[in-house]
Amino acid sequence: MAAQATNAGPWTLHPDRALPAEPAQRAIARELYQAVSTLPIISMHGHIDVGAIRRNDSFGDPAELFIIPDHYLVRMLVSQGYRHQDLGVRPRGGSAVETDHRLIWRRFAENWKLFRGTPTRYWMEHELVEIFGITQEPSAETADAIYDQLNAALATPEYRIRDLFDRFNIEILSTTDAPDSDLADHAALATDGWGDRVVPTFRPDNLFYPGRATWRADVASLAAQSGIEITDYSSFLAALQQRRFAFVAAGARATDHGHLTANTTPLEPAEAKRIFAEAMSGPVDAATSEAFAGNMLFESARMSVEDGLVMQLHPGVQRNHSERILNGFGPDNGFDIPESVEYTQALKPLLNAFGHEPGFRMILFTIDETVYSRELAPIAGAYPSVKLGAPWWFLDSPGGMARFRELTTETAGFYNTTGFVDDTRAFASIPARHDLARRIDAGFLSKLVSEHRLTLDEATETAIDLSYNLPLASYARRDSAFREERTT
Amino acid sequence: MAAQATNAGPWTLHPDRALPAEPAQRAIARELYQAVSTLPIISMHGHIDVGAIRRNDSFGDPAELFIIPDHYLVRMLVSQGYRHQDLGVRPRGGSAVETDHRLIWRRFAENWKLFRGTPTRYWMEHELVEIFGITQEPSAETADAIYDQLNAALATPEYRIRDLFDRFNIEILSTTDAPDSDLADHAALATDGWGDRVVPTFRPDNLFYPGRATWRADVASLAAQSGIEITDYSSFLAALQQRRFAFVAAGARATDHGHLTANTTPLEPAEAKRIFAEAMSGPVDAATSEAFAGNMLFESARMSVEDGLVMQLHPGVQRNHSERILNGFGPDNGFDIPESVEYTQALKPLLNAFGHEPGFRMILFTIDETVYSRELAPIAGAYPSVKLGAPWWFLDSPGGMARFRELTTETAGFYNTTGFVDDTRAFASIPARHDLARRIDAGFLSKLVSEHRLTLDEATETAIDLSYNLPLASYARRDSAFREERTT
Amino acid sequence: MAAQATNAGPWTLHPDRALPAEPAQRAIARELYQAVSTLPIISMHGHIDVGAIRRNDSFGDPAELFIIPDHYLVRMLVSQGYRHQDLGVRPRGGSAVETDHRLIWRRFAENWKLFRGTPTRYWMEHELVEIFGITQEPSAETADAIYDQLNAALATPEYRIRDLFDRFNIEILSTTDAPDSDLADHAALATDGWGDRVVPTFRPDNLFYPGRATWRADVASLAAQSGIEITDYSSFLAALQQRRFAFVAAGARATDHGHLTANTTPLEPAEAKRIFAEAMSGPVDAATSEAFAGNMLFESARMSVEDGLVMQLHPGVQRNHSERILNGFGPDNGFDIPESVEYTQALKPLLNAFGHEPGFRMILFTIDETVYSRELAPIAGAYPSVKLGAPWWFLDSPGGMARFRELTTETAGFYNTTGFVDDTRAFASIPARHDLARRIDAGFLSKLVSEHRLTLDEATETAIDLSYNLPLASYARRDSAFREERTT
Repeated sequence: MAAQATNAGPWTLHPDRALPAEPAQRAIARELYQAVSTLPIISMHGHIDVGAIRRNDSFGDPAELFIIPDHYLVRMLVSQGYRHQDLGVRPRGGSAVETDHRLIWRRFAENWKLFRGTPTRYWMEHELVEIFGITQEPSAETADAIYDQLNAALATPEYRIRDLFDRFNIEILSTTDAPDSDLADHAALATDGWGDRVVPTFRPDNLFYPGRATWRADVASLAAQSGIEITDYSSFLAALQQRRFAFVAAGARATDHGHLTANTTPLEPAEAKRIFAEAMSGPVDAATSEAFAGNMLFESARMSVEDGLVMQLHPGVQRNHSERILNGFGPDNGFDIPESVEYTQALKPLLNAFGHEPGFRMILFTIDETVYSRELAPIAGAYPSVKLGAPWWFLDSPGGMARFRELTTETAGFYNTTGFVDDTRAFASIPARHDLARRIDAGFLSKLVSEHRLTLDEATETAIDLSYNLPLASYARRDSAFREERTT
Repeated sequence: MAAQATNAGPWTLHPDRALPAEPAQRAIARELYQAVSTLPIISMHGHIDVGAIRRNDSFGDPAELFIIPDHYLVRMLVSQGYRHQDLGVRPRGGSAVETDHRLIWRRFAENWKLFRGTPTRYWMEHELVEIFGITQEPSAETADAIYDQLNAALATPEYRIRDLFDRFNIEILSTTDAPDSDLADHAALATDGWGDRVVPTFRPDNLFYPGRATWRADVASLAAQSGIEITDYSSFLAALQQRRFAFVAAGARATDHGHLTANTTPLEPAEAKRIFAEAMSGPVDAATSEAFAGNMLFESARMSVEDGLVMQLHPGVQRNHSERILNGFGPDNGFDIPESVEYTQALKPLLNAFGHEPGFRMILFTIDETVYSRELAPIAGAYPSVKLGAPWWFLDSPGGMARFRELTTETAGFYNTTGFVDDTRAFASIPARHDLARRIDAGFLSKLVSEHRLTLDEATETAIDLSYNLPLASYARRDSAFREERTT
Repeated sequence: MAAQATNAGPWTLHPDRALPAEPAQRAIARELYQAVSTLPIISMHGHIDVGAIRRNDSFGDPAELFIIPDHYLVRMLVSQGYRHQDLGVRPRGGSAVETDHRLIWRRFAENWKLFRGTPTRYWMEHELVEIFGITQEPSAETADAIYDQLNAALATPEYRIRDLFDRFNIEILSTTDAPDSDLADHAALATDGWGDRVVPTFRPDNLFYPGRATWRADVASLAAQSGIEITDYSSFLAALQQRRFAFVAAGARATDHGHLTANTTPLEPAEAKRIFAEAMSGPVDAATSEAFAGNMLFESARMSVEDGLVMQLHPGVQRNHSERILNGFGPDNGFDIPESVEYTQALKPLLNAFGHEPGFRMILFTIDETVYSRELAPIAGAYPSVKLGAPWWFLDSPGGMARFRELTTETAGFYNTTGFVDDTRAFASIPARHDLARRIDAGFLSKLVSEHRLTLDEATETAIDLSYNLPLASYARRDSAFREERTT
């Protein structure tokens, strides 16, 4: 129970949770937090299924909502000896999987202690208490009662996704979409009057790595969806550009690129053509695939200058580190491990070509904290096109967010960052994530105020900018007014 | 004098030392610390000479106890201009060495200010005040009086190693032992009823690097001790396995591996055989030696799956950076310098082969703090076999331990770490090290409580786990009950 | 307004700014700060133009003093969309530049919010309030009035550089000078009795990288100034040595080396000769240039052993990352981006050769914070010749300085660091930088005192050492008494 020092009494959330402990600083932080706590949510980097929003799906049972799809939570239980199938994650090839969802929930509740000190603990508390009105902390004893209470709530219309969308005060949410998406769900939402609330994001990674097993099928699908016959590198670029324009027409604000490295070196056109042709006729090796992917980041920047899509880059994760888990259960099951990533050299070709273009905008993310003060803040503090995204993935945590501000602000300031950007597949966690970010930024700003390095008025304005104005402006359509600011 | 703001009055230790300054947080930390301050010490990674324990040696004079063998302390004095021989470290080849131990002690006492802010200062204060009852801070003026008081105490039976072992409340201590050790001292201790209190650890580094000058001699010694004639790679593996079983029979819980990198790539069997044969007949180059060492880590994991020894890995230190000091005084004289180390790629072969094996356990250490949040916490937060060891060597310090919790807990939680593990040659510093770790963990937990992210009950349970239950469980014999928990 | 929570009242500086917020710790920090706040400034690493000091120049108008030459400030405004020429930075080749300096000042004042949380904000506040008596915070509304007030002050003799030198209480200041400098300005200052207050520093980077376009011209200029005909590598070394002796005669204390890496590998003499000859007759590639530069660091250390100049090394910055800015405006315009840098291996050749020489002294700087605990503190905590410089460039900030102490003290102590060393082209910012450093060190020490890890007396002595005694001793002439200490 976060609210109290002992386990007596009902489970509640303390109003000052995640604010600094020192009383004078906490009073300032509380005032800053109150200025932002009810601002609408800008959610420009989500991975929510657009079809679920269009259909206004319900979330199923508690295991289906909270456990089975949450790779943060599953990996923690796996790290302590559970197997994926024990937690309802379906093995490839039809092996047995636990189908008793009440038992799966109980396994989680019994192991509540494993999450102490983690953001999963914080998000889960927020969701259970704030969204579902749970009044008991998860444990072996309370597991069944909580399960029943959650199940009852989830069966009601108030817990369908569009109803929660309103209740969560989400102003705009981006989904993540493959280039071959027909965008039909987005079109249907527009017809419902939700066109400005749910927009797509263009995510072409699979097409940029010709070494991937699905690459030729993905190129074929791109050709089919774009209506452009892809016979060579030139028609491939044309088809990509066609789909980008279709995304822009459907309201997209951004592209998203999850690459192994930040390499942006362009290939000689003849070399790019040659690799493309080679890949169309058979497998290419990893180094060739990586070189082509770097070239495609450069080409994507060129296209962004033209069509105005904001370019997001997330490098540095070794996907599917455990082949046993990949082969047994598929990707995205908690075994992606970060590694060191270099930006200064890697981004130089792209930034030299496009970094000073007035219409170009690039947002950089990282899981390698060593680059904050060394590379990212100096780059964002110089190039007009570059902003720093919020702490990503494992770093979307109280300490991770605090370190981001500590390590980037002195060189890049607040205004070369995007403010908070969530990144989740877990719809019900979105308010908890934004609430936590607003608390941590309030805490950081309260330190500057209490050390007489900033006035309270300045800190309040900055807190509002980080929570609302900066995320909105960072992903604004280029043709819109750059600033659509709130001051209260 | 740590206890007071001025130098008046006797030298004492403040009961709240190393706890957070903010009053409300300190009160919580004090309560957490009191719950763990008298728990027994679990010391599973020491470098105490087993023979000294068997013989119940005395520690000699103050210079022999505190200065000459302590490479932390010697290197600090050397960094300010003293030479090793001025501090009693005997040069190779018989050059002159300072033999006036009172003078050596005085050199240390006069330079007490150099240790401000270092863990050596903290440990030394604890040892002098708590163990020896010294009431004056070291200085030029007090040096002789302290020397005499220490010398008098050291001459008494109460200051022999087994007596201190009891007084320190050490429940179990691991030594570090070469594969060719006959384990006779451990057998003698078992005869004395100390078999469960002092256990060996299998440390085969010298056998894993065929490029080392002593390698062929070490192989010969391994053959002699194992009784297995080593003629090729297969018999080499068999002899290693024989010694591992002997260690298990003598109570060993773990192996320990101090490698330059974390490379665990297996060699093709034919290639391993070829390198082994080449090394038996002459020198091999550094790259070949390193490749063989990586292969041997992979083989060690395979053996651990079979015999249950917990595998400890400590990579990333450039040993003997100064050739002048190596040639003049030998290894382990304060000139080992860390360097950047990579785990994500390096551990992939081993973890893919054995990382999901139910009986396999691996503990990772580092001196490169950049890998905490980027690599180690994600790995330990996913693989069931992996736990993170305590902050190692230069990082076994108040700030180093605090940063470890800040940078690993949010991704790996507390329960994928081993709790505190000391690593020292200095027997008298063991209680100081455990005491300091318990204070720093109490401080970290008090922050979570005061920020309403954890209840006091949860924090208390976690503090006990980190101090006692987790170290015991992390090194438990595989056939024992996994949890032997204390709750008070 | 840093002094107050709201914008009412005149703009003042709070006496406790940048000290810790927690009341008990602040009280200790305030006492420590008061012990050092009026100590003279030791400024041993500046980039002030010696000619300006000799001529006792005025600083021009506010844009010329504060904006146009300050690449920290210009890059921040450029990162938000201004162009260099909008801020008065003159383009190469005669393109248009803003000449209305009042407008340039207004652009800065209107964008005051961009600097929130940055050291530029802190320094600028200090300069405006303390040096110029400004009582309004910069804004669109106040820009003109502040401009007029500054302009009026700058026209008076009290704001000429030598008058400020006295007012700032600068005891000694080093300039940075090319090897081919005739040192005439320093000689003239000596004639004025300022010979002990302004000393040169030997900065030979351009001569060490034969791949640079200006290299042959620089060699020719070195030959002319030294009076030594440079025909080969040997005469090149002789000419460098001649100039070093001339610098020593002119009062120099140190050399300064801004290299891409920390490589110090000596070349075989024949190879060095060959590269030198190749470079004299035509271009050499980047790898060859880098190898030669590493060799020259080794040679510089050898010369330092002879002539006693302290060797300063600043590696790890990718200069002129944006070719558009380099080509448009020249170097040093805010687009230098750091990158990862390795010291452990790179320094080994130099330290093995000279690291234990009694007369050799080396000061290491970095912008890569990952090396503090991993490489730099272990090196400085062992080698008698090595000290750690202050946090450099982007890290010369409240958080940057605090992290430096947190990450280096536990391994290297305080006494293997140089104390504070500023590094600026902005003369008027020197007192602000030293004042901030003294506050941050007081804050760090207050934490040790409030956690009972240091007494107040010890902390006071340490604060004085870091502010005054250590910088003076670190750059003392080798033939002077090593310690010239202040105790109050």
